[in-house]
Amino acid sequence: MADIRVLTGPEVEQHANRESCWIIVHGKVYDVTDFLDEHPGGSKIILKYAGKDATEAYEPIHPPDAITTNLPVEKHIGAIDVSTVAKVVKEVTEEEKRRQALMDARPPIDNIINMHDFEVVAKAVLTDKAWAYYSSASDDEITIRENRLAYQRVWFRPRVLRDVSSVDWSTTILGQKSTLPVYISATALGKLGHPDGELCLTRAAAKHGVIQMIATLASCSFDDIIDAAAPGQIFFLQLYVNRDREITRKYVQHAEKRGVKGLFITVDAPQLGRREKDMRMKFVDDDAGAKVQENQKDVKKDQGVARAISSFIDPSLSWKDIPWFRSITKMPIILKGIATAEDAVLAYESGVQGIVLSNHGGRQLDTARSGIEVLLEVVVALRQRGYFPNPNFEIYVDGGVRRASDVLKALALGAKAVGVGRPFLYAFCAYGQEGVEKAIQIFRDEFEMNMRLLGARTLSELEPEMVDASNLTSHTVMSPQDNLYQNTYQPLAVAQFKSSKL
Amino acid sequence: MADIRVLTGPEVEQHANRESCWIIVHGKVYDVTDFLDEHPGGSKIILKYAGKDATEAYEPIHPPDAITTNLPVEKHIGAIDVSTVAKVVKEVTEEEKRRQALMDARPPIDNIINMHDFEVVAKAVLTDKAWAYYSSASDDEITIRENRLAYQRVWFRPRVLRDVSSVDWSTTILGQKSTLPVYISATALGKLGHPDGELCLTRAAAKHGVIQMIATLASCSFDDIIDAAAPGQIFFLQLYVNRDREITRKYVQHAEKRGVKGLFITVDAPQLGRREKDMRMKFVDDDAGAKVQENQKDVKKDQGVARAISSFIDPSLSWKDIPWFRSITKMPIILKGIATAEDAVLAYESGVQGIVLSNHGGRQLDTARSGIEVLLEVVVALRQRGYFPNPNFEIYVDGGVRRASDVLKALALGAKAVGVGRPFLYAFCAYGQEGVEKAIQIFRDEFEMNMRLLGARTLSELEPEMVDASNLTSHTVMSPQDNLYQNTYQPLAVAQFKSSKL
Amino acid sequence: MADIRVLTGPEVEQHANRESCWIIVHGKVYDVTDFLDEHPGGSKIILKYAGKDATEAYEPIHPPDAITTNLPVEKHIGAIDVSTVAKVVKEVTEEEKRRQALMDARPPIDNIINMHDFEVVAKAVLTDKAWAYYSSASDDEITIRENRLAYQRVWFRPRVLRDVSSVDWSTTILGQKSTLPVYISATALGKLGHPDGELCLTRAAAKHGVIQMIATLASCSFDDIIDAAAPGQIFFLQLYVNRDREITRKYVQHAEKRGVKGLFITVDAPQLGRREKDMRMKFVDDDAGAKVQENQKDVKKDQGVARAISSFIDPSLSWKDIPWFRSITKMPIILKGIATAEDAVLAYESGVQGIVLSNHGGRQLDTARSGIEVLLEVVVALRQRGYFPNPNFEIYVDGGVRRASDVLKALALGAKAVGVGRPFLYAFCAYGQEGVEKAIQIFRDEFEMNMRLLGARTLSELEPEMVDASNLTSHTVMSPQDNLYQNTYQPLAVAQFKSSKL
Amino acid sequence: MADIRVLTGPEVEQHANRESCWIIVHGKVYDVTDFLDEHPGGSKIILKYAGKDATEAYEPIHPPDAITTNLPVEKHIGAIDVSTVAKVVKEVTEEEKRRQALMDARPPIDNIINMHDFEVVAKAVLTDKAWAYYSSASDDEITIRENRLAYQRVWFRPRVLRDVSSVDWSTTILGQKSTLPVYISATALGKLGHPDGELCLTRAAAKHGVIQMIATLASCSFDDIIDAAAPGQIFFLQLYVNRDREITRKYVQHAEKRGVKGLFITVDAPQLGRREKDMRMKFVDDDAGAKVQENQKDVKKDQGVARAISSFIDPSLSWKDIPWFRSITKMPIILKGIATAEDAVLAYESGVQGIVLSNHGGRQLDTARSGIEVLLEVVVALRQRGYFPNPNFEIYVDGGVRRASDVLKALALGAKAVGVGRPFLYAFCAYGQEGVEKAIQIFRDEFEMNMRLLGARTLSELEPEMVDASNLTSHTVMSPQDNLYQNTYQPLAVAQFKSSKL
Repeated sequence: MADIRVLTGPEVEQHANRESCWIIVHGKVYDVTDFLDEHPGGSKIILKYAGKDATEAYEPIHPPDAITTNLPVEKHIGAIDVSTVAKVVKEVTEEEKRRQALMDARPPIDNIINMHDFEVVAKAVLTDKAWAYYSSASDDEITIRENRLAYQRVWFRPRVLRDVSSVDWSTTILGQKSTLPVYISATALGKLGHPDGELCLTRAAAKHGVIQMIATLASCSFDDIIDAAAPGQIFFLQLYVNRDREITRKYVQHAEKRGVKGLFITVDAPQLGRREKDMRMKFVDDDAGAKVQENQKDVKKDQGVARAISSFIDPSLSWKDIPWFRSITKMPIILKGIATAEDAVLAYESGVQGIVLSNHGGRQLDTARSGIEVLLEVVVALRQRGYFPNPNFEIYVDGGVRRASDVLKALALGAKAVGVGRPFLYAFCAYGQEGVEKAIQIFRDEFEMNMRLLGARTLSELEPEMVDASNLTSHTVMSPQDNLYQNTYQPLAVAQFKSSKL
Repeated sequence: MADIRVLTGPEVEQHANRESCWIIVHGKVYDVTDFLDEHPGGSKIILKYAGKDATEAYEPIHPPDAITTNLPVEKHIGAIDVSTVAKVVKEVTEEEKRRQALMDARPPIDNIINMHDFEVVAKAVLTDKAWAYYSSASDDEITIRENRLAYQRVWFRPRVLRDVSSVDWSTTILGQKSTLPVYISATALGKLGHPDGELCLTRAAAKHGVIQMIATLASCSFDDIIDAAAPGQIFFLQLYVNRDREITRKYVQHAEKRGVKGLFITVDAPQLGRREKDMRMKFVDDDAGAKVQENQKDVKKDQGVARAISSFIDPSLSWKDIPWFRSITKMPIILKGIATAEDAVLAYESGVQGIVLSNHGGRQLDTARSGIEVLLEVVVALRQRGYFPNPNFEIYVDGGVRRASDVLKALALGAKAVGVGRPFLYAFCAYGQEGVEKAIQIFRDEFEMNMRLLGARTLSELEPEMVDASNLTSHTVMSPQDNLYQNTYQPLAVAQFKSSKL
Repeated sequence: MADIRVLTGPEVEQHANRESCWIIVHGKVYDVTDFLDEHPGGSKIILKYAGKDATEAYEPIHPPDAITTNLPVEKHIGAIDVSTVAKVVKEVTEEEKRRQALMDARPPIDNIINMHDFEVVAKAVLTDKAWAYYSSASDDEITIRENRLAYQRVWFRPRVLRDVSSVDWSTTILGQKSTLPVYISATALGKLGHPDGELCLTRAAAKHGVIQMIATLASCSFDDIIDAAAPGQIFFLQLYVNRDREITRKYVQHAEKRGVKGLFITVDAPQLGRREKDMRMKFVDDDAGAKVQENQKDVKKDQGVARAISSFIDPSLSWKDIPWFRSITKMPIILKGIATAEDAVLAYESGVQGIVLSNHGGRQLDTARSGIEVLLEVVVALRQRGYFPNPNFEIYVDGGVRRASDVLKALALGAKAVGVGRPFLYAFCAYGQEGVEKAIQIFRDEFEMNMRLLGARTLSELEPEMVDASNLTSHTVMSPQDNLYQNTYQPLAVAQFKSSKL
Repeated sequence: MADIRVLTGPEVEQHANRESCWIIVHGKVYDVTDFLDEHPGGSKIILKYAGKDATEAYEPIHPPDAITTNLPVEKHIGAIDVSTVAKVVKEVTEEEKRRQALMDARPPIDNIINMHDFEVVAKAVLTDKAWAYYSSASDDEITIRENRLAYQRVWFRPRVLRDVSSVDWSTTILGQKSTLPVYISATALGKLGHPDGELCLTRAAAKHGVIQMIATLASCSFDDIIDAAAPGQIFFLQLYVNRDREITRKYVQHAEKRGVKGLFITVDAPQLGRREKDMRMKFVDDDAGAKVQENQKDVKKDQGVARAISSFIDPSLSWKDIPWFRSITKMPIILKGIATAEDAVLAYESGVQGIVLSNHGGRQLDTARSGIEVLLEVVVALRQRGYFPNPNFEIYVDGGVRRASDVLKALALGAKAVGVGRPFLYAFCAYGQEGVEKAIQIFRDEFEMNMRLLGARTLSELEPEMVDASNLTSHTVMSPQDNLYQNTYQPLAVAQFKSSKL
């Protein structure tokens, strides 16, 4: 291996334009001149850091090895002598000050009593860009909301007078012990929301015996996460399959070697969805946008963070690839993103160990149905073929879960466990590791309560008859109102107080 | 029995800290030092009264014998010489002044024309804590609202041209005469809302021939209530079964001895639900909360009033206990909180005299169905087995009733009577006994009107064909809106006046 | 007949208290002292006019002969010498000034393009008392709104490519020609809204060939209306049956003699409904109310205008009375207020000539179904028995109609014609006779348009297949929202303008 | 041909009143005195231009040959010497200034990311009159909104793990190539919204291979549009059939000669609907209105732009006319405006080449169903008779489409292509030709995305199983709320921040 060239700040600063553009990332210097027009996020954002240290902007939204993977070796110029780089005095914007004030004014964590509380706090303390990336979903965001609403269409049929002095909501997922019938589902770019990123999840999960699914697009590198694990801590891996299968093979085998217990291959994202909140963020962010656009019509435009980071995903992934995956790993394989009974049957017959009924948190095909709704038809179809129940094939659902009662509904209808993503993400954005622990504790409280009230002492006592899901497939759209009538009608009023003191 | 030691105020005041904590309740002095950490409401609230008279705070939220039951005899220090206790000059808060002003501005009671009016007045004149305790329900408060909405899904099919010159809505409940097909259902902690507490109900019920169900957690003691009864006044008893069955046995047998005519065993509350409005009240109340929490992470936290007062309830209660109840009392036994046809059948077969289809006013398992909806399946299941109709097994429903028309719907579908809780509670919070009387009178007016208009001269003429319940099991959740479209659409406007004087 | 005593103002003024209370109405003096406590509207309102001329207050809310009917002859003191009565200088209230300003600012009548416009204008220019009386409905006003909404659940299936150069929407109702398949339904107390009262309807109806149904409780007397008729003008009569059948007999026979062509007996009002808007009006109106109530608990209380004027209605009316009606008149008899298939069958079998499927404009039994919904089951039931179609038995519906398209839906489903009440009432409150004419013209325009677009050239070409009524019996109540989720979700926004000028 | 008389401005100005009224249009002078009372838009608007050049007002709302067609030749007075006409200094109104400011503040076109964005911009920059004309629909505007909402009732059932590296959404429509399964549907009076009118569509369509349907009521003349076409550009023609069939014959044959590839005969508009927004515009516009109306009750009143321009349409058009159309052209004939399965069958049997399931953008019969809903029953009925699928009979739908996903739903259910009208119209109102191109590009992006996510590589892979349309025929109207209850209920709140900084 050749000696690494060491550069100084002033040397790098000379390459600060379109003709020659160097940047510093994680202490290394790269020549990105030829890459400018290929950058999925557009050239402008790179040029902003031309000749400077871009690490801070790079870190939260790129997989750690993105730059080394994308740039040919000859563009890796060398290392930087950090002492020679002029410190940028970062100006604190009004927006940033407001965020900091809100951070200081957060409710004490003991006042957090449900998952929504975390979301409200996260919304307040996150940057607009981070909030847009996390909260956005595709097109009209129908499906993300449907995910939540679908649970409102399932009602309980609780049983009484069973001795519920002790109730137990622990389970196994892919044969691994879990203190909750819930796993932490993969979410990307955790450092946008908290400096420790996904490690907040890892540490809280370790402490409370919960399984974490590591995202391909995590801000923290895979190894950083595994290195932070407690002894015996269980992880699953979420996989976006790369166009270059060799990269995928290495990644999967490395994960297996480091002890990951399940491979969740994302099958609903041959291309990432159009997420308009995320797309709009680009325009807001970009004050010079309008001017530039007038003159540079053909410049590649940013389509939000999601698009920027996902160009490596292979849209050709198909059922034919499953045997190959089987050949490169002994980990159980789960297909994440099944959305019909037909594909659930194909999945079972392809020999994988499970499926996640998911629409990717509403971020992919809008007006796709919720996982909990799809569960109904999947269980019927698998049962008809004798594929369900089956200890070697597990069904999970994700999307929209905010209460332990949601989880219990999914389990009563046949799911083995439920994936929870954004609530844990918002928990650490709001309160770091402590937030995630609190979230787990709330789930615990709710499981205890709801299982008692439902008359189920263990998860195995949950049964379809405990829920009324007869309204689950009803998608109701209110007919357009007769606005003239509605506006003319004068609603009833209650009794009036003597003065207007009320 | 030993002489009772008599203490002075200054003596008690010396025990005003964590190390030695005495309090005065109802003229007795107790050493609660060891009990501080076991107090379901947390130690802080007790410490506030360390060395002082805590009666005023204690009274409305504890069963009268709570302190004697929970403290070992040796901690009963003695009696207090009242003349030696320094009078606390209670400062009147702004909040309290506002409440008093609202109390003065209440609408004249003759302006009250429906149950909602009582609730609006109660909401205005109650303390925030009382309102939170009374009005709260569990989790997302879906079920409490569903209770009301379910009645909106039942429509009348009124018959005409029947001679309705006289109509009669009196009935019997468990063989006892009632002027209304409605009983006053048990609600707890009445003194939070009115100094006379549940006695307001007792007195109004006596005057109008209505049956009151006494709550285990009433602020007034059982005997106070019975002592206030008119000759021949009918009571039922609501029972939370104690972990210590001996306590329960005595309580039940005492009630029977004092003439109670029916025992309503609550079966839907092995643990009280998480009621977030109630839980949040603790944090608001507790200005030092945040600070304390930083340093005392493991201190037992308050989870609202409901949790604080309910730790004695036995979660192991089961069908196996029914014969024991049969063995200790001759009162008719009713299971309160049945929520499925399956359990209704089990109840019938267990030999009890009736069931209340109830979800505990939405305060227990959220997204459980309403009593009126459950009634449909219960009647079908019992009828199929030849268990219904049966003069020795009555079905009641409660939850969400605000109009006599609601009651008539339940009766048409098979209920014998309907329990009404909060409306009577709010009536006395707003206007004391007079409010309850007014509520009864409104029901009477509405029964007369609606029975005439429905074409039923007596309750026995109510029949299933008088209602259309075909939409009752439809739980409709509106699909997420296309917000962009909705916001872009411009509604029609009516004709404009010449100027903006309108 | 004895000479009539003539009194002077000062003489009458001496009887201005509870002990002796005389009032002047229509130039006659009455001693109402003994009647004070029997007055359905309460004594207080009469005492306000003790010793004075009460005509102005009396007129709009009493049938013209109310006072002579209710008072024994010996209390008819005599005539008044008008010249001796002190003119009361009526003070113009702020409210009255506001109303007058609004009256002046009314939209020009040519700007009125639909029925809602009339209602908006009427609401603005009516007194609060009149608006409350006209617009109110019973209990929660569910049914009055349902009446409108039910039409929104029926959708058109229009046929194309039929030669619709000429379309004709004239018809016959009970064999009488009508230029519209609509009749003016009975509404009470027209003078509350316009000094000419129901005569506005009469004159407009004459001019445009529309049939008016005269209300028993019209402000104008029956004869005044008939006297104002054009030659050959057709009327129907709405009948509230009196407890004293002799009064009813005379009234009916007088109507027949004066040429009325159909007798519509109201069967859904054995007692008038509790209309809370109307009831509340009393309290607002009555500034001394609260004080009085404190001391006079047992005084008969006002329950709104509706109750005050309806005490004569006979609640004993039943199917057994039908033959008697047949015996006293040759007019076709129609039962107004049928609400079930069962009663429609009974009506047919009782030998009457038709029925109105109606819930009394939502003013009687709340949560009764709409006429258009009931029509579905009625047509099925009659058809099954071979009773429908039948030229000698017509079915009408009323309630909620605001558009010609509503009427066409009802006709397609089997109605012969549709009753329209409030829209015509509001039309004359807003613009007098001219308003009613305009309303008729709007209907005409809409009939022409909609029949062309529907592909029906005559009313006989309307057929059930032209509507999709499959959703008509669906009563949808939205499940309670997950408010925490709804409030946390941030809706999508559209593209932003560069500045906030939009 | 006689010499054309040339007149001067002052000569024309002498004919500026009701007795003699000349106007200048497109450089010609016309005597419209006798036509004043026949003008469908009323005489007043003409008199405003009496003796002056009316071209600017005339142009956007009349077919170019309207004046020559309607006026007898002898009223064509001659040509005008333009140099002699006094230039009218047009005053710029406040409204106009506001519009211009908004035009300047439009979002940069790159910030436009969906169809709604165009509508919002168009709404801001259009005159009120243009917005009213474009956006309005008939009666209560139920159907126009239903068109959008119906798509929300169809949900996707996406298939995964299909190799979707390349997806293709091109198709043929009536055998003509189209880069999108979408054609630009006819909308009228384009110059109201942009000076280039429909030519914006023509130029953008040419550039992107999209088919434009030319409207009979386009502001640009048919020939202007065709003259602007690119070589080989494909057009369809929308036809309102004239009462004078000879005019229609010439128009159709001229179109065919100029290369139009399909004749879309509008069959749902024997008369144009009552569009209240459009009708109200007249009153607002017309400040002297109220005054005039007082005195001139019988003057023909304006009923909005739509009525004004449509009097030539023949309401007698019927199935019997189809053979005649067949006889005058070889173009494929499509019936636009079919709304039932019955008429779809008749259309097929009449030998035409296709149908558009349409309700005219909600502008005709209100509460008619949406095209996408009608598609369900049409496909069933045609399939039952062996008429579907059939390469020689294509089904299109239009109305309410805003997303490529909507189009894919229609195609999965059997449509060959989808018509999109207002979105393209609003696109050019907002940004001219460039807007239309952007709209096409957005559709392209969305098709790529959604086909990948749906698992359909070509349009032929779309199949009914890819959608769940089971809720499509459900028209849900929410029952009237219990407002008293709703207003009394206090929603849950989330955790509070320490101060009100949030």
